[in-house]
Amino acid sequence: MDSLADPTSTPFEALPSAGDEAEPRSFLDRLFDRGHLVRTGIDGLYGRGGDFESVVEALDALVSRLGAADGAERIRFPPGMSRPAFERSGYLKGFPNLAGTVHSFCGDEAAHARLLACVEAGKDWTEDQACTDIVLTPAACYPLYPVAAARGPLPAEGLLFDLQSYCFRHEPSVEPTRMQMFRMREYVRMGSPEQVLAFREVWLERGTAMMRDLGLPLAVDPANDPFFGRAGRMLANNQRMQGLKFELNVPVNSTEQPTACLSFNYHQDHFGSTWEIGQADGAVAHTACVGFGLERITLALLRHHGLDLAAWPADVRKQLWG
Amino acid sequence: MDSLADPTSTPFEALPSAGDEAEPRSFLDRLFDRGHLVRTGIDGLYGRGGDFESVVEALDALVSRLGAADGAERIRFPPGMSRPAFERSGYLKGFPNLAGTVHSFCGDEAAHARLLACVEAGKDWTEDQACTDIVLTPAACYPLYPVAAARGPLPAEGLLFDLQSYCFRHEPSVEPTRMQMFRMREYVRMGSPEQVLAFREVWLERGTAMMRDLGLPLAVDPANDPFFGRAGRMLANNQRMQGLKFELNVPVNSTEQPTACLSFNYHQDHFGSTWEIGQADGAVAHTACVGFGLERITLALLRHHGLDLAAWPADVRKQLWG
Repeated sequence: MDSLADPTSTPFEALPSAGDEAEPRSFLDRLFDRGHLVRTGIDGLYGRGGDFESVVEALDALVSRLGAADGAERIRFPPGMSRPAFERSGYLKGFPNLAGTVHSFCGDEAAHARLLACVEAGKDWTEDQACTDIVLTPAACYPLYPVAAARGPLPAEGLLFDLQSYCFRHEPSVEPTRMQMFRMREYVRMGSPEQVLAFREVWLERGTAMMRDLGLPLAVDPANDPFFGRAGRMLANNQRMQGLKFELNVPVNSTEQPTACLSFNYHQDHFGSTWEIGQADGAVAHTACVGFGLERITLALLRHHGLDLAAWPADVRKQLWG
Repeated sequence: MDSLADPTSTPFEALPSAGDEAEPRSFLDRLFDRGHLVRTGIDGLYGRGGDFESVVEALDALVSRLGAADGAERIRFPPGMSRPAFERSGYLKGFPNLAGTVHSFCGDEAAHARLLACVEAGKDWTEDQACTDIVLTPAACYPLYPVAAARGPLPAEGLLFDLQSYCFRHEPSVEPTRMQMFRMREYVRMGSPEQVLAFREVWLERGTAMMRDLGLPLAVDPANDPFFGRAGRMLANNQRMQGLKFELNVPVNSTEQPTACLSFNYHQDHFGSTWEIGQADGAVAHTACVGFGLERITLALLRHHGLDLAAWPADVRKQLWG
């Protein structure tokens, strides 16, 4: 994998101080103090202030500019996807603990009275909630594969899609970069192994250059998804050994555990087989995606350039706002 | 309520044809055909094509321009909110059937094996899903009230917020304007009754002018929320009689049942009491909001001006894209 964009194991320098040394506050608390994030009482679930959101929007637009020449088809899915599609996707094999199913009340007026009595008494009122046809989107590309499959075999040049959506992962945490609900921008490529690997290589270079131009220290490292359980550890090792996943890491909350801000994933024929997506020549389609964690990159910028956007380096502001 | 912006009961003219008369297709099918919406297999849950999304974005920006001079505080909440806050909000009293709770798997590896066996066999695998601390946001302003309450009494001039989020309502439907997941833009005013009623009046005028400038036929009508059950009918009648809710209706899927594209709501002291939000003088705060259904307005534009954005009237395009 020596063609990969400059992987490095150089240790990161110490992070900028998280504030007044005499009265240390966590990075998360400082984000609350400045109104960049807004408390909801739930770990990993936050409102975003106006400045924070303006950075997310600028990053989203920057990624669009970087990919503009490629002519990707733009689709925006809502934050939930079809449950039958989710079941078929295989997500439950690897990450059952992260998924979020949507449940609703389907009872009559008597059941409603019981529900309200439970709420009033502080008891569990959710027992009668029934699972709907909707599951929260775990990654922006999951709703895409059945859509692509329904179109029939890929054209010879393959397909390229541009996605962005809110995603959900059930992992409550006070680590500000580990949110339960966050936005993921993605480009997804479908085609031959050569086509999708070339796509991944291009975005490894573009993504690395983008983050350098934003003044962020980074390392590109082999990585694995957080597969569940003991069997999951084998899957993770396999993924890492085969070089299927790389992450672009930036120290945000710590230098020892930097944050994956971009990820570059080669799925081989996993989704092509699962959804019966064929190449033009009849072979099973391969797929790859590049994902941008919009909140994570925003948090990296706030950590390295400070909480006052107006004081960010001029060249960083120029990258974002022209 | 004669100061309200020109309510009218004039019958709407017939809607433009939904396509080739020789081979009629529903409006929803035509939206799929043109790629404005993307099928997921679930009624009311759709992907949005690039053109559709560009209209949503332009409308969002247009609403921002209309409200820019007011200096609203911008907050963007994710599509889920705190369950304790949701329980306290009172939403379950009125609309238990529309809410969506988020559930997750919390079991061990043995439970995971059972779950996968159920998925494989096509049986219900969701029984062991446990309710998380997150409920899908039912309306953009619901996560806001506890945030405002935590700040203490309102300043003398009250507060004004600018919100937008994906919302969820469990009402599967093939009516394209009745989606289960959709975006609502809102301004929310908190203060004295006079302050919040003046806010509502201003936005009734601005919203009506905006929709007229977009070339859409409209009526402003008294309305009520879809409260659940028999007790709910009394609440609905009361709301309508007191003039607490008005909707700006546009025929989209039918002339007989036009679509509420904007809504103007005076909550009196409902949220102020629920969340103990006080005015500067110690009285309970009143609140009001104006909500813009971004997908609904987009669908109204597509229905009235056609599915080809480039062929929309020049003055409509100018309103949206300058």
